[in-house]
Amino acid sequence: MEINSKRTLQIFAGRSNPELAQEIATQLKQPLGTVEIATFANGEIYCRFEESVRGADVYVIQTHSSPVNEAIMEQCIMIDALKRASAGRITAVCPYYGYSRQDKKARSREPIAARLVADMLSAAGAGRVISVDLHTGQIQGFFDFPFDHLTALPLLADWVRNEVRGDVVVVSPDAGRVKVTERMASMLQSDVAILYKRRSTDVRNQSETLAVVGDVEGRHCILVDDMIDTAGTICGAATLLKDHGAVEVDALATHGIFSDPAIDRLKNAPIERIVVTNTVPVSPERRFDKLTVLSAAPVVAKAIRAVFEDTSVSEIFAGNNQP
Amino acid sequence: MEINSKRTLQIFAGRSNPELAQEIATQLKQPLGTVEIATFANGEIYCRFEESVRGADVYVIQTHSSPVNEAIMEQCIMIDALKRASAGRITAVCPYYGYSRQDKKARSREPIAARLVADMLSAAGAGRVISVDLHTGQIQGFFDFPFDHLTALPLLADWVRNEVRGDVVVVSPDAGRVKVTERMASMLQSDVAILYKRRSTDVRNQSETLAVVGDVEGRHCILVDDMIDTAGTICGAATLLKDHGAVEVDALATHGIFSDPAIDRLKNAPIERIVVTNTVPVSPERRFDKLTVLSAAPVVAKAIRAVFEDTSVSEIFAGNNQP
Amino acid sequence: MEINSKRTLQIFAGRSNPELAQEIATQLKQPLGTVEIATFANGEIYCRFEESVRGADVYVIQTHSSPVNEAIMEQCIMIDALKRASAGRITAVCPYYGYSRQDKKARSREPIAARLVADMLSAAGAGRVISVDLHTGQIQGFFDFPFDHLTALPLLADWVRNEVRGDVVVVSPDAGRVKVTERMASMLQSDVAILYKRRSTDVRNQSETLAVVGDVEGRHCILVDDMIDTAGTICGAATLLKDHGAVEVDALATHGIFSDPAIDRLKNAPIERIVVTNTVPVSPERRFDKLTVLSAAPVVAKAIRAVFEDTSVSEIFAGNNQP
Amino acid sequence: MEINSKRTLQIFAGRSNPELAQEIATQLKQPLGTVEIATFANGEIYCRFEESVRGADVYVIQTHSSPVNEAIMEQCIMIDALKRASAGRITAVCPYYGYSRQDKKARSREPIAARLVADMLSAAGAGRVISVDLHTGQIQGFFDFPFDHLTALPLLADWVRNEVRGDVVVVSPDAGRVKVTERMASMLQSDVAILYKRRSTDVRNQSETLAVVGDVEGRHCILVDDMIDTAGTICGAATLLKDHGAVEVDALATHGIFSDPAIDRLKNAPIERIVVTNTVPVSPERRFDKLTVLSAAPVVAKAIRAVFEDTSVSEIFAGNNQP
Amino acid sequence: MEINSKRTLQIFAGRSNPELAQEIATQLKQPLGTVEIATFANGEIYCRFEESVRGADVYVIQTHSSPVNEAIMEQCIMIDALKRASAGRITAVCPYYGYSRQDKKARSREPIAARLVADMLSAAGAGRVISVDLHTGQIQGFFDFPFDHLTALPLLADWVRNEVRGDVVVVSPDAGRVKVTERMASMLQSDVAILYKRRSTDVRNQSETLAVVGDVEGRHCILVDDMIDTAGTICGAATLLKDHGAVEVDALATHGIFSDPAIDRLKNAPIERIVVTNTVPVSPERRFDKLTVLSAAPVVAKAIRAVFEDTSVSEIFAGNNQP
Amino acid sequence: MEINSKRTLQIFAGRSNPELAQEIATQLKQPLGTVEIATFANGEIYCRFEESVRGADVYVIQTHSSPVNEAIMEQCIMIDALKRASAGRITAVCPYYGYSRQDKKARSREPIAARLVADMLSAAGAGRVISVDLHTGQIQGFFDFPFDHLTALPLLADWVRNEVRGDVVVVSPDAGRVKVTERMASMLQSDVAILYKRRSTDVRNQSETLAVVGDVEGRHCILVDDMIDTAGTICGAATLLKDHGAVEVDALATHGIFSDPAIDRLKNAPIERIVVTNTVPVSPERRFDKLTVLSAAPVVAKAIRAVFEDTSVSEIFAGNNQP
Repeated sequence: MEINSKRTLQIFAGRSNPELAQEIATQLKQPLGTVEIATFANGEIYCRFEESVRGADVYVIQTHSSPVNEAIMEQCIMIDALKRASAGRITAVCPYYGYSRQDKKARSREPIAARLVADMLSAAGAGRVISVDLHTGQIQGFFDFPFDHLTALPLLADWVRNEVRGDVVVVSPDAGRVKVTERMASMLQSDVAILYKRRSTDVRNQSETLAVVGDVEGRHCILVDDMIDTAGTICGAATLLKDHGAVEVDALATHGIFSDPAIDRLKNAPIERIVVTNTVPVSPERRFDKLTVLSAAPVVAKAIRAVFEDTSVSEIFAGNNQP
Repeated sequence: MEINSKRTLQIFAGRSNPELAQEIATQLKQPLGTVEIATFANGEIYCRFEESVRGADVYVIQTHSSPVNEAIMEQCIMIDALKRASAGRITAVCPYYGYSRQDKKARSREPIAARLVADMLSAAGAGRVISVDLHTGQIQGFFDFPFDHLTALPLLADWVRNEVRGDVVVVSPDAGRVKVTERMASMLQSDVAILYKRRSTDVRNQSETLAVVGDVEGRHCILVDDMIDTAGTICGAATLLKDHGAVEVDALATHGIFSDPAIDRLKNAPIERIVVTNTVPVSPERRFDKLTVLSAAPVVAKAIRAVFEDTSVSEIFAGNNQP
Repeated sequence: MEINSKRTLQIFAGRSNPELAQEIATQLKQPLGTVEIATFANGEIYCRFEESVRGADVYVIQTHSSPVNEAIMEQCIMIDALKRASAGRITAVCPYYGYSRQDKKARSREPIAARLVADMLSAAGAGRVISVDLHTGQIQGFFDFPFDHLTALPLLADWVRNEVRGDVVVVSPDAGRVKVTERMASMLQSDVAILYKRRSTDVRNQSETLAVVGDVEGRHCILVDDMIDTAGTICGAATLLKDHGAVEVDALATHGIFSDPAIDRLKNAPIERIVVTNTVPVSPERRFDKLTVLSAAPVVAKAIRAVFEDTSVSEIFAGNNQP
Repeated sequence: MEINSKRTLQIFAGRSNPELAQEIATQLKQPLGTVEIATFANGEIYCRFEESVRGADVYVIQTHSSPVNEAIMEQCIMIDALKRASAGRITAVCPYYGYSRQDKKARSREPIAARLVADMLSAAGAGRVISVDLHTGQIQGFFDFPFDHLTALPLLADWVRNEVRGDVVVVSPDAGRVKVTERMASMLQSDVAILYKRRSTDVRNQSETLAVVGDVEGRHCILVDDMIDTAGTICGAATLLKDHGAVEVDALATHGIFSDPAIDRLKNAPIERIVVTNTVPVSPERRFDKLTVLSAAPVVAKAIRAVFEDTSVSEIFAGNNQP
Repeated sequence: MEINSKRTLQIFAGRSNPELAQEIATQLKQPLGTVEIATFANGEIYCRFEESVRGADVYVIQTHSSPVNEAIMEQCIMIDALKRASAGRITAVCPYYGYSRQDKKARSREPIAARLVADMLSAAGAGRVISVDLHTGQIQGFFDFPFDHLTALPLLADWVRNEVRGDVVVVSPDAGRVKVTERMASMLQSDVAILYKRRSTDVRNQSETLAVVGDVEGRHCILVDDMIDTAGTICGAATLLKDHGAVEVDALATHGIFSDPAIDRLKNAPIERIVVTNTVPVSPERRFDKLTVLSAAPVVAKAIRAVFEDTSVSEIFAGNNQP
Repeated sequence: MEINSKRTLQIFAGRSNPELAQEIATQLKQPLGTVEIATFANGEIYCRFEESVRGADVYVIQTHSSPVNEAIMEQCIMIDALKRASAGRITAVCPYYGYSRQDKKARSREPIAARLVADMLSAAGAGRVISVDLHTGQIQGFFDFPFDHLTALPLLADWVRNEVRGDVVVVSPDAGRVKVTERMASMLQSDVAILYKRRSTDVRNQSETLAVVGDVEGRHCILVDDMIDTAGTICGAATLLKDHGAVEVDALATHGIFSDPAIDRLKNAPIERIVVTNTVPVSPERRFDKLTVLSAAPVVAKAIRAVFEDTSVSEIFAGNNQP
C-alpha cells in the first residue's frame, strides 16, 4: 500500500495569550484548532484535543507570561497529549520564553531554570521551539533540537523611524544589554550611550550609583531592553538621562511584562512613550496613555509559515534574527 | 590521596507544606537545611541553597498541593539547583503526588500528566521519589529509578480500631477503588460494600444512578479513598448509604485536598467524621469540627531514615506499603 | 534533487500468531512481507527481511503468547533488524501485551516487568505500539511515544446482544476488574454484580472466602475479564454464581491465554459458553465445544489502516477504545 | 546526620546455571542471596528478592545458555527488580554472553542481536557486565559502561601443558578464529595451522571445500574455539586434520554449548578429548567419556572480588584478559 | 493548511577530501551545497551553511583522513549546525571511518575510540552513517541508527580480473584479516595463503617471526587489506612472499592512508603494484609510479541515491556489502 | 561481605599543558598518574592508563589550547578509557574551555560548538567539569551535570593592586564584555570606560569606527577581557585609549591564547604590560618582556581538593566565582 505524504498544519493555543494566538492564526488564514483546556478545582490542568492531530505539523502557542508556572505546565501538558495522540512534529511557540533571566548561575547553588524549562519542553515531546528576543542567545544551546529565534527589533526600529524626530541616541539601561543597544543603534544609524553601576571609592563607605557614559545632553534618548518587568531599571535610567540633559526619553522593549509596580512607575517616570509588543498580553484595563503595543503576530506567523513550508526563516529577517 | 567516604543527610523543604516538613525534620532530629526561595514579581520562582550540599544525600520535601503547578515547578527548580551544586543523591519527597489521577488516557488525545510529572522530576535531576498512597501503583512504573511507596492505610486503620465501635463495613465509593477497600477491610477484618454507577434501561431515557452492593443496613460504614478532593463522590456516597440504612458513616482518606466546595459539602453531608492525614496541608481556618487530621510525618521520616541508612523500607510497613 | 515523499505500508509477522497476522493482512488487502525467522539449535533467534524496508511504515505483528519470552525477544530482534535496515517508522503490534499483570510492585523487591517490556521495545527501535485491551490503561504511560489502545469489548458486547436472551447481569470476577464490568454493563444497559474476597473474622482462624455482591438469582450472568489464563478465578466465580442461583453463566474475555489447566477447568465448570478473541492463538486441538473464538483481526486492521493514513483511531471505536 | 559509607556485596543467581553460581559463591565465601524466581503457567517469569538490597553492590549471575531467551529475560527482570529495590550498583555476570555471534550484519536486513542484548541489560538497570571469552572483543563497545572481560584461555592452556605430550600445533577451525589461535599458540609456544573454505574453480561448478594450511602431519593438533555449539565445524576440522596425518586431535573451547546433535557428533568424531569450562552447564546425563569440564568459577569469583574491592581485574590475568 | 511533502537532497563536503566529494556530486548530477568552513587563528573550526537546509535530506561528506581529529571535529560541527538549522535528516558520509582500529580493548584501560566517534556523530545530530569497508563490521553495532556499509572489494576484484594474468593466490597479511582474504578469493575463485606471527620456542629466547601458510611459490600474490597505513605489515609480507618464491606481489586495499614512511617503504618493497581507492585523498605530489588509485565515488554516489530514494542499498552490491 | 568505602584521588594530564598539570599536582601534593598517550603516524590518538583507576575519583586535566581539536579529542579519548576502566567519577578539568566563543548562533545556520563540546565530554563519560573564566556563564547550562566555574579575576585584581599606582580606570574592549569590566572595577573600586562600534551616518557610506565612552584622559587604563586571542581587539583598544589621552595602558586576561599575529601586535602596541594566567601554556620562546604570566594552579588545585573532599568551592572564592 502506498500513499503520497502530505503535511498538515495545525495551530493550538494555550490560555496565556489568546489574542496573540488568534492574530497569528488570522495572519496564517488558518483557524485555531479546538482543544478543551480546564483547571480542576485542585489546580491541576486538564486538556483534550477535540480534533485528530495524527501526523500533523502542530504548533502550540503559549507565551510564558504570568502566572508563568501555569503557562509552562499547561504547554507541557498540551505537548504530552499531542505526542501521545501521534502528532507528527510538535513545535512549542513561546513568544516570551519564561525564566530566561535565570540562564546561568550568578551565584553558587542557584538553578539554571531556563535550562530546566528547555528540558521540560523536550521531555514533554516538543521537537522545536520558536521564540522572540531571548534574554540571551545562549539559551538556544540549552536545546538539542532546532530553535527558531525571531526578533522584534526591526519592528521597534521602524516605530522609531516613524515616530521620532531629532537627534537620537540609543541607550543601554545596564552593562549587560550593550550588545542589543549596539544592534538597535546600527539599525537606526545613531549613537550609543550606556549606563553602568559605579562603586564609589570613599573610605569605608561603599555604595553603588548609576553612571552614564556617552553624550545624551540635548538629545532624544531611546532606551532599549529585551523586556520591561518591574520597570525599576528603566525608570531609574530615564531619570538619570533627564538629569544629564536628555530632551526626551522613550523606552522600547519586546516583552512588556509589567509586573507590579511597573505601570505606576512608568506613568510617573520622565518617559515620554513606552513601546512594547504583544508577546506578553497587556489587558485593556492595564493599558495607559503613554503605552504603545505593537503586534508581534506578523513576525511569528511568518516564521510558522516558513517552518511549515521548509523555507528560510532567516530570510524573513534579512539575517537579523540572531542576537 | 584517600579519604573515608561519609554520607551526610540534608533535608530541604519547598513552600507547599512547611509544617509537615518541620515535623519530619523533628522526627529525624535533623534541622531543615536553609534555602532561600522567593517568587519574583512576574511569578518566576527563584531559589538558592545557603549551605553547601556537595556530596550530600539530599531530600527535597514538597507536597503537590494547590497551587499544584507552582509546587511542582518549585520542586524541580530546587532539584536543578541541587544537581548543579553537586548534591550526591537527590530524592524528591512528594507526600502527595500531583496529577496522579491523570495516570492513563481515559479518552483519546488526553495527556498522561502523571508521567509528565515523573519526566520533569527526572529531567531536573531527582534520582529517587518517596510518596504516600499513590492513586494507582502503576505510577511507580513511570520512573526508571527507585520509588519508595509508603502508605498511611495502617494509620487510618488504627484510627478506626480506636475510635469506632460496633458492626463495621468498609465501603468503596466507586468501582475504581474496590482494591483499597478490600485492603482496609482486610486490616479491620470487616465486610465490604461497593457503590457503582448503574445505567437505567428504561426506553429512550438513559440515566446513571449510584447503586450500592453489599449489606450496609444497621451498620457503621467506613468510606475509604486515597483522596478527598471536591468531596462530591464521598458525600453522594454517604447520602446513599444513609438511605440504605447505615447507622453512621465515617470518611477516611490519606490526602485531604478539600478543593472548593469540599468543606461546605462535608459539613452538610450525613458524615459523622472525616479523617485524613497532613500530606496535604489543611490550614487552621479551613478545619472544622468533624475533621481529624493525623500526622503522616512519622511514616515519611521513618522512610527517609531507612533510605539514608540503606535499611529496608518495607519492613517499616511489615510489607504492607505496596498497593 | 527533489522527489515527492511517499509512504509505503509493510506488515511483517513474528511466529507467535501467524493466523491472526494473515487475517489482518487479508483485511488490509496487503500481503504479509517476507521475512526469514529461524531458531538456531542453541535457541537463539535469527531473522532476515527478504525485501527492502527503506523508509517504509512497518508494522511488526507479534502477540505475546506462550512461550512469551520467545515472542518478546523475537519481536525485539525483528525491530532491531528493521531499524538497522532503515525502516521509516516501526510499530510494534502486540495484540496481547505480555507481562501486563506485572504492571506495579505489589510487594517490595518485585520487578515492574510490563515497564521492562516497554523499555525493550523502545530500545530495539519501536516508535509506536498498538495493543488490545491492556490489563491496565496505565501501561500506556510506560512509553514515551504513541500507544494506540484498541478494545474488543464492543465485539464481545455484540456477541451478547446476538446470543444471549433473558435478564442479563454483568459480573466482575474480582475487585480489580469492576471498571471493565461497569463499561460492559453500560454497553449492554444491564446490571452489575461483583465478587470479592471476604476475610472471615472468626477468632484465631483467618480465612478468605469469595463473596458475591449484587443480585444474580434467576439471571443470566456474563462474567467479563481482560484475559482468561489458568481459569481458576473465572471457574470459581461461575460456581459461586450458580450457588447463588444464577440461571446460566457465560464467560467473556479478550485474551484467551488458557494456560494449563485452564481447558480442563473450563470444560468442567458450570459455564455455558466461553467467548474470547484470537489475540492469543488457540490451536484447533485445544478448542472445545463451549468455546467461541471471535476474530480481532478487523479491529487491528482498521487501526493499522488509520495509523498508516493518519486518520483517527478513536473514531473507529466511537471513542470507546480507552479503558 | 552523617554515617560512614559501607559497601556490601550481594550475589544472586538466575536459574540458568545454579551450580556455577554456587561454586562462585563458595569461592567468595559469600552465600548466594535468597530470591524467589518462578515461571507462571503462561510462561511469564516472576521474581522477588527476599532480602533487602538497598545500597548494596549486587551481582546477578546468569549464563545465557539454552533456553537463551528465557535466560536473558530472567536476568533483565531480576535487574529491574533490583533497580527498583534501590540496589546501589548492579552488575550482570554473564559467564556466556548470548547472541554473541550476531555481533554484526553479515547480510543486509539482519539484526545485531548482541547489541540488542546489551541495550536490554542497560535498559533493565545494569551498570556493568562481567563475561568470559566473548565471541569478539568489539561487543564491549556495545555498552557505554564498564565491561570486565575475562578469559579462560590460560585455564585451557594449563590443561594442555599438563595433559598433552609431544609435538603440538594449535589449529584454527575457520578463518575467523585465527587471532585466538595465535594467542593460544603464543601461550603454548607452539605452531599454528589454519582451516579455511576453498572455492573450487572448475568450470560451471562452484563448490566450497575445507582446506588446511600449515603443517599438521605427525603432530598433536589442538583445535581452539571460543565455543562448541552444534560441533559441525569442529568435527569437520578434526576429520580433515586426521586426513592430513594428525596423530591426535583435541578440541578446546571456553563455552560448551553442545546443541543437538553436538554430543553425537563429538562422540563419533576423530577427536581424542574435548575440554570446555562450565560457563555453560553440562548436565551429568549429557557428559561423556571424552569430555572434560573445567571450572570457570575461580576466574569469575576473582573478578567479582576485584570489582567489589576496586582492585585491578587485569592483574588477575596478568593483562591477558583482553582478546 | 496542507501541502505535499517533498524530499530534497543536499550534499555538503568538509575539507578533508574535496575531490572525492566533487566526484560524488558529479555522479549524482547534484552540485555540492555552499558552506563556509574556516579555521580561526587559534585552531577552532567555524562553519556556516550559505543556503537553507530546512527539511532537506542532507549528506555531509567527510573522510576521516589525516589530520583525523580535525576531520572528525569538523564533521561534527557541520552536523551540529545542520541540526540547529532544521535539516530534515542528516547522514554522515565517512568514506574512511576514523579510529576504526580502536574498536575493542586490546589491553586493559584502553579506550574504544571507534565507539567514541560513533557517540560524537550521534551527539552532534547525525541519524545515519555511510562508510566503506570498516576495519570490522561490528562497528555498525556501535550505532543505534542505520549504518550503510559499502564495500570497494568488487572494485578491487575487477582490477585484478582486468590487470592480472596467471596463477593468482590471495594472501592475508596477518591473522586478523583472513576473513577479507577469504571473501576476495571467493570473488576471484582463487586460493588463499596466510601470514601469521610465529613465536619461536628456543630456550630463553622468545622471538616473533612472520610465517606463511599456503602455497605461494611460482604464483602471483595478491595481498589484501582494508587499509595501508605505514605499510610496515604489507611490505614485510611482500618480502616474505618473494622469499617463498612468489613470482609477483600486488598489494590491494580500500583505504590508502599512507602515513610516513609508507610511501618510501612501498617504493622500495618488492611489490609490483599498489592499488587503493580514493576514500582517503592521495595528493598528486605523493603519488608514484606503482600506485593506482581507483575512484570510490560511484560506489558512494549510488548508495546516497538509494538512501535518498528509499531503494535497496544492498542490491547495488548484489548483497556483498556486508563484511 | 562488607567493606568501608574509601575515596581515592587520581589526577591525569593530557598533553596540552603539562606544566600547569604538574603545578596543580604539586599544589595537591599528589603525583600525576601515569598514562601513556601517543599519536599514531596517521594522526589518531591512543592512550592507556598504566595504573588501576577502579572506583577512583579521577580528574583529567586538559586545557583546550591549540591545536584545540587535538586537545578535545585527546581528553574525550582519555575519559572514554577511564569510564571503561571503571573509574568511579570522572571530572574533566578544562582550565581553558575550547569553542567558548561559539556559544550561540550569531547568524543563521551556524553551529553552537560550545554545546557540542559539552555533549562530547558527556558522551565520553565525564560527570563533572571544572573550568576557569568561561566566555559566558551560560555555557554551564549546556551541561546537565555539575560544573565548577572558577575565576582568575581576583588574581588579576591582586596584580593591579600590587603593580599599578595612580588613577585607574577599567576599560571594556567591546560592548560584550562590559559585565566583566564592571566586576573588575568593583574589585578595584575604580571607574569604568567602554569601547563600542559606532556606525557613521554619512550618506551612502556606512562605516564602523571604534568609539570610547567614559573618561580616560590622564588615567591609567586597565583593559580586561576573558581571553587575548589574535590581540586585534585589545591592540586597537589600546591605541584608541592612548589617542584619548590615557597615560598608560595595561591589558589583563585570564587566557593568553596568543594566536598569530598576537605577539607581534602586542609587542608593537602602546600597551605597557600584558598579564595573563597559565591556563593556556605560553612556551618560553614566545614570552616577551612586557608579558607577565600568573599561575592559575593554586586556584584549580584548591577547587579539585574541595570537590574531592566535598567542601564548598564557592567559599574558596568568597562567592565570587560565578560570572
